[in-house]
Amino acid sequence: MTPPYFSAMARRAHEPPISWLMRLKLERPDLISLAAGFTDDETLPVRHVRALVNRLLARATAGRAALQYGTTAGLPALRSLLLDRLRQQDEASYEKLTVDDVVITNGSQQLLYLITEVLCDPGDVVLVEDPTYFVYLSILQARGVRTATFASPADLSAKLDALQKRGWLPRLKLVYLVTYFRNPTGHTWSWPMKEEAWRILRRYERAAGHPIFVLEDAAYRDLRFDGEDVPSFLKLDPGNRRVLYTNTLTKPFATGLKVGYGILPAPVRRAVLRAKGNHDFGTANFLQAILARALEDGVYQNHLQRLAQTYRRKCHTLAAALGEQFPHEIPEGGLYIWTQTPNSEPTGFRSRLFQRALRAGVLYVPGELCYAEDPSRPVPRHFLRLSFGAPTLAQIREGVRRLQAALRSSEPSETGRRGQPVAVAPK
Amino acid sequence: MTPPYFSAMARRAHEPPISWLMRLKLERPDLISLAAGFTDDETLPVRHVRALVNRLLARATAGRAALQYGTTAGLPALRSLLLDRLRQQDEASYEKLTVDDVVITNGSQQLLYLITEVLCDPGDVVLVEDPTYFVYLSILQARGVRTATFASPADLSAKLDALQKRGWLPRLKLVYLVTYFRNPTGHTWSWPMKEEAWRILRRYERAAGHPIFVLEDAAYRDLRFDGEDVPSFLKLDPGNRRVLYTNTLTKPFATGLKVGYGILPAPVRRAVLRAKGNHDFGTANFLQAILARALEDGVYQNHLQRLAQTYRRKCHTLAAALGEQFPHEIPEGGLYIWTQTPNSEPTGFRSRLFQRALRAGVLYVPGELCYAEDPSRPVPRHFLRLSFGAPTLAQIREGVRRLQAALRSSEPSETGRRGQPVAVAPK
Repeated sequence: MTPPYFSAMARRAHEPPISWLMRLKLERPDLISLAAGFTDDETLPVRHVRALVNRLLARATAGRAALQYGTTAGLPALRSLLLDRLRQQDEASYEKLTVDDVVITNGSQQLLYLITEVLCDPGDVVLVEDPTYFVYLSILQARGVRTATFASPADLSAKLDALQKRGWLPRLKLVYLVTYFRNPTGHTWSWPMKEEAWRILRRYERAAGHPIFVLEDAAYRDLRFDGEDVPSFLKLDPGNRRVLYTNTLTKPFATGLKVGYGILPAPVRRAVLRAKGNHDFGTANFLQAILARALEDGVYQNHLQRLAQTYRRKCHTLAAALGEQFPHEIPEGGLYIWTQTPNSEPTGFRSRLFQRALRAGVLYVPGELCYAEDPSRPVPRHFLRLSFGAPTLAQIREGVRRLQAALRSSEPSETGRRGQPVAVAPK
Repeated sequence: MTPPYFSAMARRAHEPPISWLMRLKLERPDLISLAAGFTDDETLPVRHVRALVNRLLARATAGRAALQYGTTAGLPALRSLLLDRLRQQDEASYEKLTVDDVVITNGSQQLLYLITEVLCDPGDVVLVEDPTYFVYLSILQARGVRTATFASPADLSAKLDALQKRGWLPRLKLVYLVTYFRNPTGHTWSWPMKEEAWRILRRYERAAGHPIFVLEDAAYRDLRFDGEDVPSFLKLDPGNRRVLYTNTLTKPFATGLKVGYGILPAPVRRAVLRAKGNHDFGTANFLQAILARALEDGVYQNHLQRLAQTYRRKCHTLAAALGEQFPHEIPEGGLYIWTQTPNSEPTGFRSRLFQRALRAGVLYVPGELCYAEDPSRPVPRHFLRLSFGAPTLAQIREGVRRLQAALRSSEPSETGRRGQPVAVAPK
């Protein structure tokens, strides 16, 4: 219980469910976790990072610069390389963008936090996809921000009409979209979907009375292993006025070097930098210097190809193991497969299936965690998010076998509905 | 101007004055900065960090662990080493403290932010020393927290009485103290001062209706170059209930590896970890793994001795250059000397002295930035904070010469009060 003299935010904040899952895994190393969004251990670039650090610290002057404080916005060399890379990825010249528009943060998570902090007061509204990244939902919940949900661009217009009727539109600050291999569903926004959503959102700005920002979370963009890249929303916004683009170098390279970045319109960027000045006045300069080298030398880009091979194989292994029993689509990148139980059996922490899965030695993320509060629709209870990031191929196969065993034994006919929980679920 | 549809916090937040000083320095490399709290370039441990990274990444398994995600609270090995070190420094067994009580953050700055975020709502009150660390004041200002000030423990009781009369005591959440070589004055809290303040604060808790936490910012503790260490406030709080102890490995070792830490009572720690879970779910694991090695191998501890020699010499060089013209005390550690102008001439950004100093090519921090809002006393306008951290010995001497020249030329008799500003000060 948070004491009553703590801040309203502290009193609102829940224990994040993922912490509970991580503690379980620590306490029971025999568990196979298909839950955590960790990256593949074997591909972590130990030798590359060692070589990069040796080059960086070979000379006293460059070495000292990497070990000194930097600026709040981040290392100019890194920001410039990231902007170049974005131009290549989007096949756009982005003549209006400069290195000043790029901000470096402690993973893209910090940037999601800062953006929400500078735009949203308690009672403001954020529109999110259904389902979406649950840690972002946790930010919104802790900050007292109200949520509304939509399922697809086709749904967006009706949703905005409904918000307008409820009088929420003037409080709608941003639309949060995970546009590449969405956590949790694996879906990617196609270019026509982006165009459609963009057109629709612009129509409602007059009624909102202010810009409705698109917060584009591209955290999985560099983890594509099949298909073609899609340009970011930035390409629809040549004046750099509406799109808050966030991305990360954390998952695609050396995860322990936690660095994210974003491209922000000037007023948002200024507010974010003032806030970051108070949070930590700049991300560790050493990490930025290493990653600038990795980008400059092409080490980062080459590493992505190796990653693609690994994750493609792991994804297809998981998909094959799930078979037809667990219906799913196969994503073209990212770390997750979204699936559901046959017969729509519930998957939540307190469900029979989750408890049986724990007993069988496998963890997953219950899909219900990924649904924002929105009284206009019921929360589906029968989905599972499975990650193929961290487990080995053998663990993926064994994990699914355990899941299948849990499913069989959780059928009422076998258990007689007498299954006892083996772990207390978080509140 | 921050747009009106941004959050109340974003609209309250000012551009931090230090950013303006840093930009000035970037634009005019000829400037000698006695302003920034940067660390000494020559002592940055380039070779040590290189060797530590080579050892850490020599084996695939340990290397991968350092390049994977960690937990929100931080690397257990590092937290354990930091607790051991604290026990040594305080000469206390701290039997009730465990590794669970230690939290790792992105520099101690992030921990100051998180603590304030989880304890204070807008309108709450924080009591600070007069003068104090101006970036902490910036956090309070942006978050809408009201400030009250006190000058010394002898002053504390009267101040708390005044707060009680004004009805502010129930809103008083914490007392913020920079207890070692305070930024900006260089003063250290002696043990008897700590005991006295502790006794006084306890007396007012009943009237407050809740704990009044002591936020002890020990960021400069490891930068002692003369005299004896003083135990932390933790020693007065064997139950670990009232003291929020924050410290950092950033300034005393490799500054670009930005890592801070704290010891927190359980309810505050839980709230801080939930908030950090939303901010970034954990500080870069790689940095923590390097610093754990540095502490384990004694590299960190040995480095402090080298640092002490360097900073002692720089401090005494600055003191000698200032002479009797700029009255000051010589600190026993830290990075700053606090001084004042002869004849109490003002030192602010818009003052004649600051503008002349800029023209002469030297930067300092106007003392007035370090005073919290408190209508019960006027803000002294004639102090300067001078840092001997970053400049070389030659730059320190030349910087003071320029300051002396600025002082002479800013005297009314010479300028006829016609000096024009050479740079626009921030609002």
